[in-house]
Amino acid sequence: MRAVDIIHKKRDGEVLSQEEIAFMIQGYSEGSVPDYQISAFAMAIYFKGMNAQETAHLTLEMAKSGDQIDLSPIHGIKVDKHSTGGVGDKTTLVLAPMVAAAGVPVAKMSGRGLGHTGGTIDKLESIAGFQVELSREAFFKQVNEIGVSLIGQSGNITPADKKLYALRDVTATVDSIPLIASSVMSKKIAAGADAIVLDVKTGSGAFMKTLDDSILLAQAMVDIGTEVGRQTVAIISDMDQPLGHLIGNALEVEEAIDTLRGRGPSDLHDLCMTLGSHMLVLGEQAGTIDEAKAKLEAHIQDGSAFERLKQLVQAQQGDADMIEHPERLPHAAKKIEVKAESSGYVAAIEAESIGIAAMLLGAGRETKESQIDLAVGIDLRKKVADPVQAGDVLAILHVNDESRASEASARIVKAYQLSSSAVEQKPLVYAIVSKDGVQRFV
Amino acid sequence: MRAVDIIHKKRDGEVLSQEEIAFMIQGYSEGSVPDYQISAFAMAIYFKGMNAQETAHLTLEMAKSGDQIDLSPIHGIKVDKHSTGGVGDKTTLVLAPMVAAAGVPVAKMSGRGLGHTGGTIDKLESIAGFQVELSREAFFKQVNEIGVSLIGQSGNITPADKKLYALRDVTATVDSIPLIASSVMSKKIAAGADAIVLDVKTGSGAFMKTLDDSILLAQAMVDIGTEVGRQTVAIISDMDQPLGHLIGNALEVEEAIDTLRGRGPSDLHDLCMTLGSHMLVLGEQAGTIDEAKAKLEAHIQDGSAFERLKQLVQAQQGDADMIEHPERLPHAAKKIEVKAESSGYVAAIEAESIGIAAMLLGAGRETKESQIDLAVGIDLRKKVADPVQAGDVLAILHVNDESRASEASARIVKAYQLSSSAVEQKPLVYAIVSKDGVQRFV
Repeated sequence: MRAVDIIHKKRDGEVLSQEEIAFMIQGYSEGSVPDYQISAFAMAIYFKGMNAQETAHLTLEMAKSGDQIDLSPIHGIKVDKHSTGGVGDKTTLVLAPMVAAAGVPVAKMSGRGLGHTGGTIDKLESIAGFQVELSREAFFKQVNEIGVSLIGQSGNITPADKKLYALRDVTATVDSIPLIASSVMSKKIAAGADAIVLDVKTGSGAFMKTLDDSILLAQAMVDIGTEVGRQTVAIISDMDQPLGHLIGNALEVEEAIDTLRGRGPSDLHDLCMTLGSHMLVLGEQAGTIDEAKAKLEAHIQDGSAFERLKQLVQAQQGDADMIEHPERLPHAAKKIEVKAESSGYVAAIEAESIGIAAMLLGAGRETKESQIDLAVGIDLRKKVADPVQAGDVLAILHVNDESRASEASARIVKAYQLSSSAVEQKPLVYAIVSKDGVQRFV
Repeated sequence: MRAVDIIHKKRDGEVLSQEEIAFMIQGYSEGSVPDYQISAFAMAIYFKGMNAQETAHLTLEMAKSGDQIDLSPIHGIKVDKHSTGGVGDKTTLVLAPMVAAAGVPVAKMSGRGLGHTGGTIDKLESIAGFQVELSREAFFKQVNEIGVSLIGQSGNITPADKKLYALRDVTATVDSIPLIASSVMSKKIAAGADAIVLDVKTGSGAFMKTLDDSILLAQAMVDIGTEVGRQTVAIISDMDQPLGHLIGNALEVEEAIDTLRGRGPSDLHDLCMTLGSHMLVLGEQAGTIDEAKAKLEAHIQDGSAFERLKQLVQAQQGDADMIEHPERLPHAAKKIEVKAESSGYVAAIEAESIGIAAMLLGAGRETKESQIDLAVGIDLRKKVADPVQAGDVLAILHVNDESRASEASARIVKAYQLSSSAVEQKPLVYAIVSKDGVQRFV
């Protein structure tokens, strides 16, 4: 077998065999197939695509390229959740304790963030003492005891995907559906979950700008799950504005706490209910979505979801009193108001610009080496459909280092798109994709 | 400027600027743009193409990447000729002395061959003593004195093209018209000719299998010539069978001598007349193609074309008596007949298989390090349209080392496609492409 022949075949739109895909990915991992062949191969895939089987083979090859976590010591059906990334997305912090309270074990490994804000692990570190590194045994034991553990990714998960992603990033081959889908799913499969709920963001702030593309990506990922025997459901949700009001690390923990207490922003609450209910159904803790939603609402109402977060924090050596009293979480020294320069109705809030503004304040990492300031961030006071008068406060910056605050303010003002006529609320969930097909709500 | 953005732009089908193309090619030459970006770029070009201007910019960048020969010390209009490669193609050996006899200076640098048979330079070395390395000054002086010199390529011509070609070869990006066209034309432009006649082969034995593709390639090359001010004409000629009867190094010199003496095979004669007449018109030694053809026929008839070959050989220290007495050229020890296994009419002779058979006998190089046996080769006794009876001699192998002769024989038998009904002669020249348009003969 020769790499050039496999590239040629894909270039001509032919379907590759499992052996051919394995040859490319294993060869790339070992170094016998060089970067320059893989980048040409990726570009051929960009143009010619891959069918569901090819994409599944690619996914499994990447999953096999490193450690594969065996979650079988944990009792029950382990359901993982993944978001394709958005601004203000703190759903994991809400979902993990909530679905654990409803009986679905959550054994989740998360990454640190590069970009707008930190990742889930960074956010958790704003809780004093919280340990994100546990031994495999302690991790399993905790999930068996309290139903939930959130730890940092350790070991060598999908090195082939890491290598391929870095190459795609510099060769204009990132935005290929089979390549994105296999990248996401390879990590989930290596992480060992039995079933997977995906949150595929769509809109200006998301990687997929249109609903049709988002559905295609969702289908590709659901197909992979089906091919490899991991039941997968994808929720396609709005990213035409950030999720919730708070963006930042400690700020997002605070908003997650509010949501678990039943007083969070409605978009965050609703999305967590949708994602969580699918996790319950896949985890066989509810027979229908409606039953699952009712269960989750009950766990919010009776405080058991919130209690589960406290237990999680305690189990990982965090200061659980901070969860009870979020005012004890890190807070920035100064608040700066960002005011509207004109009047109208909020039509959209360009999420990516808000994310960059948060990064400028220090909430995210510009480079791998950047230090995150856990306290800083943005509080959005106006969201889509809200009326705005010139001079109204659009957002409040939570700032420690003021050096880039005016740059952040300017970006926020620009991110708000105002309409002169009233704007209707958009639905939060546009579609749900499962092996049974696509359910569209718009 | 970033390479990834330029790849992205081409991937999306946009037109690149001269600066962007220069950034990629200069960066590649210097090493600041790595292989893996150029291979993705080449694949994007494969799918999205390049317009005439982009292709011209790419060509000039590659031409500028190394030495650019200044032929101005040579008097007159220098017309170069290039063939896209075929089996049995010894036209340069006929054309160079013939058009020189008619007043067009030929200052030609040729390469050695890799593949079926040697290149022009290898073939010339079957003439005892022939020197293929001349100083630049001696080269110019000889052309000014006798109108013709054929030497090996020296110096550092189009290193960017060499590097890119090697990369394309292993990344399935060879067969892209703008990339092929720019590769050919960059070398011709760097070699300094004022005008260029191209012989674009079409058919099973050629790189371009269909006439339409061959015309597209020819147009791309003619467009480059027009863009950069080097008048270019492309002849599209048949490669559904090898050219002439003899394949091999000394054997091809012998057939060229026959042709210069007016007793060569008609296909070789006719093609040389067509290519040569366009060289004469571009070199302003004839006003029309008919006038040019008449002139060339006269130079064959009066022996002056043949005389010019002898002068060329003499000027480059070769044994001119071998030209007068070709039986003194290297000859193989043994002749082996290849016989037809069935009867019919020859419909086609797969040129590539014949080429490989010649290589198996030692006439060509399998690797850069292979030694060529100048004496060996193949004499095709039957050509397209000839009737064949089972047992008839299809070809005669000229062999020194018999170890792979039976493999070569089998390939030759297989290369002959026989038809049960009579076969019509195909035209030799299918089309002529110039800046004035396409003239099709079929």
